[in-house]
Amino acid sequence: MVTDSTPKYTIILLRHGESEWNLENRFTGWTDVDLSPKGRDEAREAGAAMKRAGLHPGYFFTSVLRRAIHTLQLAAAEMELDYIPVVKDWHLNERHYGALQGLNKADTAAKYGAEQVRLWRRSFDVLPPLITPDDPRWPGNDPRYAHLPADRIPLAESLRDTIARVDACWSELIAPRLAECGCVLIAAHGNSLRGLAMRLLNMTATEVVDLEIPTGKPWVFTTDDRMRVLENHYL
Amino acid sequence: MVTDSTPKYTIILLRHGESEWNLENRFTGWTDVDLSPKGRDEAREAGAAMKRAGLHPGYFFTSVLRRAIHTLQLAAAEMELDYIPVVKDWHLNERHYGALQGLNKADTAAKYGAEQVRLWRRSFDVLPPLITPDDPRWPGNDPRYAHLPADRIPLAESLRDTIARVDACWSELIAPRLAECGCVLIAAHGNSLRGLAMRLLNMTATEVVDLEIPTGKPWVFTTDDRMRVLENHYL
Repeated sequence: MVTDSTPKYTIILLRHGESEWNLENRFTGWTDVDLSPKGRDEAREAGAAMKRAGLHPGYFFTSVLRRAIHTLQLAAAEMELDYIPVVKDWHLNERHYGALQGLNKADTAAKYGAEQVRLWRRSFDVLPPLITPDDPRWPGNDPRYAHLPADRIPLAESLRDTIARVDACWSELIAPRLAECGCVLIAAHGNSLRGLAMRLLNMTATEVVDLEIPTGKPWVFTTDDRMRVLENHYL
Repeated sequence: MVTDSTPKYTIILLRHGESEWNLENRFTGWTDVDLSPKGRDEAREAGAAMKRAGLHPGYFFTSVLRRAIHTLQLAAAEMELDYIPVVKDWHLNERHYGALQGLNKADTAAKYGAEQVRLWRRSFDVLPPLITPDDPRWPGNDPRYAHLPADRIPLAESLRDTIARVDACWSELIAPRLAECGCVLIAAHGNSLRGLAMRLLNMTATEVVDLEIPTGKPWVFTTDDRMRVLENHYL
């Protein structure tokens, strides 16, 4: 097969900065907490770094959670690219942590044991405890998910579940716009970005559970004309 | 004709808060200046007022100029509606002030006479002095307008020209989404919002040149099922 290794497309992944619940060491998931002041600074610094690198995305993507949306807005303002279209999609949300959402991580370890918590956090397939639809944390109570059929609203997600929905977003929303404009920026969450990295780098499940993506550091992928990654680096 | 006067749709117009060039008394037009600190406060207060009023737009619209985009972002954050989709469209930009853009209003009056400046600012049909495509202020030099054919890029606009493009945006982008979701918020500029008000209130050219829309005050229109205005008020 003849391959063309000329760089053609650029994909930038940006994990949101520190949130208020990172500070409190609580399981966040789909809970819509805001950035901390440090998280806002991280976002501005990421924008400044992308501007210095001469990056000019034609589309922005983010989740429907404000810590990612604000990260994108602050970075875009630094880049002087406020006018670029933004797609906000729940498929890019953080992993849904089910009944763990809102709990302190240390308390949870004391209650269930450190090994169980490690399994919930660091396995590919294991589901955290489910919420039920009568739980106030059930996403169906939130207008931003009201358009989803009840059976699409998660009660908890494994990393595998999260990655499957992120993959659908990549194929249906991101890749077509990347083909159109040549460069996209995706501001999202630790686990949703793991999904994109897994797809871009052809990682195994074992590799992806060990992948740690730093907050506020733009991760830049260059691909060939078939969106196969040629090179990747952090700014 | 049987008319249905039941309130059905809600349209909110929001003029951006004070910008850096309002402070300097300069003609701004399409120049992409940012909000002043006071302008940012006005935007937050507008969001708080809309939240208190229980307004819940399903779509946001704004121009491609950051003073309007930031007004929208700050208001949306106060409303806790950051996740609502945003359409950024150049048709909602401020009137293009041609060769006046960047000039101090007092200096311009001293040079051309107060009556000429009044005519440029307050007539419906009169064009300000044109720029030429070799002027650094020509929008065709800006990537955000690069997709437009050269003959669509204004060299200056009368209020009539501005209103004609705003009207196209209303028909093609705003009204269909209003029909879908029931409530929209449009964060834009003095002259582009005049165009929307003219359409919604069936104003004459004489009336619209005298219409002054205050900054940072949400203007709420309620319409019947055919988008005919039943009532309007400022929050």
